[in-house]
Amino acid sequence: MSEQSSIGVKTIPAPLSTTKKIAFSAFGAYYDRTEPSKTLAKGNRYVEIGIYSFAEVAIDPSTGRQLDPASRLQNLLEEIELADQVGLDVFGVGEHHRPDYAVSSPSTILAAAAVRTKTIRLTSAVTVLSSEDPVRVFQQFATIDLLSGGRAEIMAGRGSFIESFPLFGYDLAEYDSLFQEKLELLLRLRAEETLSWSGKHRAALDNQSIYPRPAQDPLPIWIAVGGTPESVMRAGRLGLPLAVAIIGGQPARFGSLVKLYRDTAVAAGHDPTKLQVSINSHGFIADDSADAAELAFPPYLATMGRIGRERGWPPPTREHFETERSPRRAMLVGDPQQIIDKMLYEYELFGNTRFMTQFTLGPMPHDKVLRCIELYGTVVAPAVRKAIAESSNQAMS
Amino acid sequence: MSEQSSIGVKTIPAPLSTTKKIAFSAFGAYYDRTEPSKTLAKGNRYVEIGIYSFAEVAIDPSTGRQLDPASRLQNLLEEIELADQVGLDVFGVGEHHRPDYAVSSPSTILAAAAVRTKTIRLTSAVTVLSSEDPVRVFQQFATIDLLSGGRAEIMAGRGSFIESFPLFGYDLAEYDSLFQEKLELLLRLRAEETLSWSGKHRAALDNQSIYPRPAQDPLPIWIAVGGTPESVMRAGRLGLPLAVAIIGGQPARFGSLVKLYRDTAVAAGHDPTKLQVSINSHGFIADDSADAAELAFPPYLATMGRIGRERGWPPPTREHFETERSPRRAMLVGDPQQIIDKMLYEYELFGNTRFMTQFTLGPMPHDKVLRCIELYGTVVAPAVRKAIAESSNQAMS
Repeated sequence: MSEQSSIGVKTIPAPLSTTKKIAFSAFGAYYDRTEPSKTLAKGNRYVEIGIYSFAEVAIDPSTGRQLDPASRLQNLLEEIELADQVGLDVFGVGEHHRPDYAVSSPSTILAAAAVRTKTIRLTSAVTVLSSEDPVRVFQQFATIDLLSGGRAEIMAGRGSFIESFPLFGYDLAEYDSLFQEKLELLLRLRAEETLSWSGKHRAALDNQSIYPRPAQDPLPIWIAVGGTPESVMRAGRLGLPLAVAIIGGQPARFGSLVKLYRDTAVAAGHDPTKLQVSINSHGFIADDSADAAELAFPPYLATMGRIGRERGWPPPTREHFETERSPRRAMLVGDPQQIIDKMLYEYELFGNTRFMTQFTLGPMPHDKVLRCIELYGTVVAPAVRKAIAESSNQAMS
Repeated sequence: MSEQSSIGVKTIPAPLSTTKKIAFSAFGAYYDRTEPSKTLAKGNRYVEIGIYSFAEVAIDPSTGRQLDPASRLQNLLEEIELADQVGLDVFGVGEHHRPDYAVSSPSTILAAAAVRTKTIRLTSAVTVLSSEDPVRVFQQFATIDLLSGGRAEIMAGRGSFIESFPLFGYDLAEYDSLFQEKLELLLRLRAEETLSWSGKHRAALDNQSIYPRPAQDPLPIWIAVGGTPESVMRAGRLGLPLAVAIIGGQPARFGSLVKLYRDTAVAAGHDPTKLQVSINSHGFIADDSADAAELAFPPYLATMGRIGRERGWPPPTREHFETERSPRRAMLVGDPQQIIDKMLYEYELFGNTRFMTQFTLGPMPHDKVLRCIELYGTVVAPAVRKAIAESSNQAMS
C-alpha cells in the first residue's frame, strides 16, 4: 500500500528507508551537522501532533439529520478532552460565521476547553484577524492562557472564508492591508503592556494598557497560509511560526513554499533552529483503511460539494477522493500505518515541527471520531515521534 | 442587632413581622390579589440569589502582596463552582481594563465556568456594551448558552468605569447614544437570525445572519443601572430585566427608582408580573459578624480608597464602613442572620426577583471567600427564599 518502508505499529519501529534524506530538503540547516550535541537536543526533534476542527453542523448525508449546535459543541469538547488524554499536543478551533458551523468565536470554545484539559495546547485555527479587533483578541487569548496555565496560542489568518468581512464592516478590497496592520498591532500588544499606536483600520491607542497579560511571554502567534508566497514571506520576515494548509493535491509542491519561508526568515536574521512549521491537512483514521474511507467519504462529498458550489469547483467524486488519500497526496485518510507513513513522508519533505489534522470535515458519527482520535494519539503519534527521533540519530551516526 | 424580627437559621423560620407590607411598595401590582391562584404561582415568588465578581488583583493590604492574575482566575472558577454546588442561582463576572482586575473579557471566563458548573446561571456583570460590538457579544454569549445548556445571560451597562472608551476608540461625549444604539442592535440580533440594520456607531448589516443561535429564546438581556432615571425608564419601556446597583447609602432611597421602572414598563404595555429586578450590592458573610467586618474592611478601605482617589470621593473610614453595614444601609457585611434580615428588608422595599452580592471588593483570603459562599448558599439563600414564600402565603390568607 505504501511506497515507503513502514514504521510498524506493533513491531519495533524500523529505520525509515528515507532516513538519510530527512530534514535536508526545506530545512537543510535545521539540524546543524557541525554541532550535533546542541542541535540534536530532544526539544529540537520533538514533532507536535494535533487536531483542528470547525465544529460543522451541516446535515449528515447518512441520516438526513441536521446536528444541533449544542450537541456538536458538547461533542467537540469531548474530542478535545480525549485528545488531551491520549497525549496529543495541540487542538485548534476555527472561526466561521455560517449556519453550517457552530463556532464563530474560537476563544469562547477554547476557554471552555482550557478548564477541561491538562496539557494540550489550545489554538485558534484560524482567527480571521483581518475582521477582528486585535485588542479584544489579545485580551481573550491572554485570558485563555491564564486559565490554561500557559497553553494558549493564536493562529492568525486572512481568512479562507470571507463571510466575516460584511459582518464586521470590512472591505474585501483591503484584504491584505487589514491583515498586515492588525498583525502589526497584535504583535505590539504582545510585546508592550502600554503602547501608543495608530493605523488605518482601527481606532488609535494613546498610551493605553492592555490587561490581563498572558502567562506565556511571548504568547505564540502563528501565521496560517493557504499558499500565497507574500503571506509566507511576511511570516518569515517576522520570524513567526508558519502553518501551511495543504488540503488537496501533492504536498511535494509545497516544498518550495516552506523553503521560501525559511530562506526569508534566515535572510531577516532569525535563528533557523527556532523556526516552526505546521502542516495542516484533512484526514480520518480507522482501524481498517476501507472503513476510514467509508466514514470519511460522505462528509467529504457533502462538504467539498457544498463549498465547491460556492466557489465554482468541480463536484467531488469518489475517484478524486481515493486519489487524494493515496500515499503521495495530502489527505490523511486510512489506517494508522498509512497515516504514519504519510506523516513521515511529509516530514521528509518539510522538516516540519507540527502536524495538524482536521478529522471532521463534515458530520461524522461521534464514536468513530473518538476512535480516530484515540488511534491518532496512541498509535500514530508515538510511532511518528519515535521514527523521527531514530532517523535523526541515524543521520548523525 | 436587627431592627426587624429574625428568620432563624437553626430554628423553624418564623413569619416576618413585616409580612403584611411585603411587596406592596414598589411592586403593588406584582402580586395580584384578585387572582391569587395565578399570581401566587411558585415561579413568581422564587427569588434568585447570586454573586458577582470583578476578579480584583490589587495589592492585598494585609500582606502587601500583589495577586497574580492566573491564581486569581483559578480562585474565581473555584468560587463559581462552589456557588453552583451550594445551589446559588446566578454568578456574574464584570469587565475591566485595568491592572487591578483580571477580567477584561467576561465571556471568556463565563465559557470556562459553563463547563465546570451544572445549574447556576452565568452572566456578565456588566458587559460595557457602549464600547463593544453587539455582534461579537451576541456570538460569544450564544456560544456560552450552548455550552451551558441555556444558562447564559448578558447584563448590559453603559459602564461605571470608562477606561474601555479610549481603548476601543469611542467618544465619552456619546456615552448614551452609543449604549442606546448598541442595545437596539443587540435586541435585534436576539430576535432575528437574519437582519439588515444601520446606525451611527457600527458598520451596517445588509441581510446578514448571525451564528450560532443561543439555546434560550430569548437569551436574557438585563439592563444594569447605577441610578440614572433615564436608564431605568429605557429598561422599563423595553420591558427588559433591571439590575440596580446599590453600593452605598440607604436602599430605601432607591424605591422610587424601582417604582419608576415598573410604572414605565406598565405604561409601555408590559406585563407587570413578568418584570424582573435585581438588587446588586457589596457584602461579605462570616460565621461571626465581627469576623465578617474584620475581613471585609481592609479591601473596602483599599479599593474604595483607590477608586475614590480617582473620582474625588472622601477617603473611606471604619466609621463609614460600620454605618454602611448597619441594618438600613446597603452593604451586606455580617453574619448569616444579619444578611438574611437585610435581604428581607430589601425585598420588602423592592419586591425584587434577584439579589446579587459582590463579596470580593478587594483581595480576600480564598478560604474565607469560599466559606462566605457556602454560608450564602446553604444558610442565607434557603432562609430568604423560605421567608418570602411564607410571607406571601400569609399575605394571601
